Amino acid sequence: MAQVRDVAARAGVSPATVSNALNHPSKVSPETLTRIQAAIDELGYVRNDAARQLRAGTNRAIGMIVLDVANPFFTDVARGVEDVLLDQQRPLILGNSAQQPSRETNYLDLFEQQRMDGVLITPVGDVLDRLRRLRDRGTSVVLVDRMTRVKEFSSVALDDKMGGRIAVQHLLDTGRRRIAFVGGPASLAQVKSRLSAARRAVEQHGGAELTFVETETMNAGAGRTAVEQLLALPRAQRPDAVFAANDLVALGALQALTLAGLSVPDDIAIIGYDDIDFAASAAIPLSSVRQPAHEMGSVAATTLLGVIADPGSSTVQHVTLKPQLVVRRSTGG
Amino acid sequence: MAQVRDVAARAGVSPATVSNALNHPSKVSPETLTRIQAAIDELGYVRNDAARQLRAGTNRAIGMIVLDVANPFFTDVARGVEDVLLDQQRPLILGNSAQQPSRETNYLDLFEQQRMDGVLITPVGDVLDRLRRLRDRGTSVVLVDRMTRVKEFSSVALDDKMGGRIAVQHLLDTGRRRIAFVGGPASLAQVKSRLSAARRAVEQHGGAELTFVETETMNAGAGRTAVEQLLALPRAQRPDAVFAANDLVALGALQALTLAGLSVPDDIAIIGYDDIDFAASAAIPLSSVRQPAHEMGSVAATTLLGVIADPGSSTVQHVTLKPQLVVRRSTGG
Repeated sequence: MAQVRDVAARAGVSPATVSNALNHPSKVSPETLTRIQAAIDELGYVRNDAARQLRAGTNRAIGMIVLDVANPFFTDVARGVEDVLLDQQRPLILGNSAQQPSRETNYLDLFEQQRMDGVLITPVGDVLDRLRRLRDRGTSVVLVDRMTRVKEFSSVALDDKMGGRIAVQHLLDTGRRRIAFVGGPASLAQVKSRLSAARRAVEQHGGAELTFVETETMNAGAGRTAVEQLLALPRAQRPDAVFAANDLVALGALQALTLAGLSVPDDIAIIGYDDIDFAASAAIPLSSVRQPAHEMGSVAATTLLGVIADPGSSTVQHVTLKPQLVVRRSTGG
Repeated sequence: MAQVRDVAARAGVSPATVSNALNHPSKVSPETLTRIQAAIDELGYVRNDAARQLRAGTNRAIGMIVLDVANPFFTDVARGVEDVLLDQQRPLILGNSAQQPSRETNYLDLFEQQRMDGVLITPVGDVLDRLRRLRDRGTSVVLVDRMTRVKEFSSVALDDKMGGRIAVQHLLDTGRRRIAFVGGPASLAQVKSRLSAARRAVEQHGGAELTFVETETMNAGAGRTAVEQLLALPRAQRPDAVFAANDLVALGALQALTLAGLSVPDDIAIIGYDDIDFAASAAIPLSSVRQPAHEMGSVAATTLLGVIADPGSSTVQHVTLKPQLVVRRSTGG
């Protein structure tokens, strides 16, 4: 396999000039660059990133650990990250913790062994000490969407209180008074914030009430089961609106109502959360609270690249992105 | 930062024994392993994979390029791959070509520079020469779901002809006679195979007919637009069943029919393809042709690890997995 010295010989320059051409092309004249490029093409020379990593002590790749790769919300975040990294010729190593602390630890082990430049993580387990160790060993860390109140790491968060408030305000504005909040578990930070903001909005409105139907997970099956429970109530106690803590739950709720022969939104309105593509393409298009998922990914990646470029800086940056109400047929839009 | 020699000194063994403990633990006695592990924990030693890669000449990571990370089918395939690799402590670098040859080339460049052990690819562009070069430079390649008739690379494919046949046979068995096949572009291998098998099944059945409604892409919007065109036809010319070339198209078709006030399956039946989770959780649960996506991922990963373990072998393995009919409400199930 061709080495730098072979390229140098073929181009009639020194190995140091080839190295400059590869790493600091602005230091090399255009004619020399052209000659070196021709030699690289002829010889089929490929940079050996393992050797460069060893010298630099780190790996250009960025690791990312997401909670659930089956939820399009996280796929959208990852695409936002990827779009920024691809421009920088940095590969993204995507790990799916599937909300399991043991899988999360496996990926952190790998990232530590690979001495990556940076890690983006939506934490599941109690990993703060692990993240501090990573940072102390030269891997920059940015928190995404969870534990974002930790002061020592830069983070990108979403304003879940605002999201809970605007969803409920929209239901109240369209005449709904008995709102069921469906999601869980209640210990999940996102669920807590959205629910408490929803409660406050309902309390500020005389004559409205909010029920919390807690689910174990946040998938369509959970939404379906929760709504089946609500439909078993006497008609007068049924809600007239469902606020689902994510769109998967909302899709399950829509299915349960449709299969029970009820009309959405005439009998019961539904609003979801995240605005994944499947919300707009549901049989009855779903209103939702749009999370700027792709933007969160690109902001997280840009923040991480900033930390990598200046690891000694004491500036820690916390960005909070605002959600947006999207009104569609399922709430009468 | 702690080195192997520091660990060896602390554990009172030779550096070679530490190296054996890390790479071939079965060669080291349990007591020595425990001592070495304790030293590793005390000193906070971390393996330097860049150094190991440099010695080995390759990178333990596996690269994978998928067509569309927004389609849960590919996410399921990637999870199947990831489950196998995680067991082997190999990270997965996931790249999304988004069906753009230029993005595909970017990822192949990165994978080549990183000297990865292996690459899984669902090709978009004309990349056979690139893949040959990768292979000649020590990166094993397995083709997934496309170009699987190329003899020189191992591959994992799905039997699309069988899928097209069983979908149409089911529609015929349940009394449908005017079937619209919705999908495209027609040049896509999967579309070609499913369509030709569907045509053959219809031809073998007297009195049935099949219309091909070609779409530019395979998302929900394309399905919606195609069905709106069909609904603009005089009632007698409308189909009584839609066979959508994937579930995203089927979800769009379901939405168009629902919003037009038609009943699924009473007026028009729908069957999709892939059986993504969103098929089962649609407002009217969708019949579909289940692709063993997760299994395809794990078979592809296992095949690739086999090639990596024995790169000189002349055995090329082609695996074809069979799809399965899943009957739900949208075809009267």
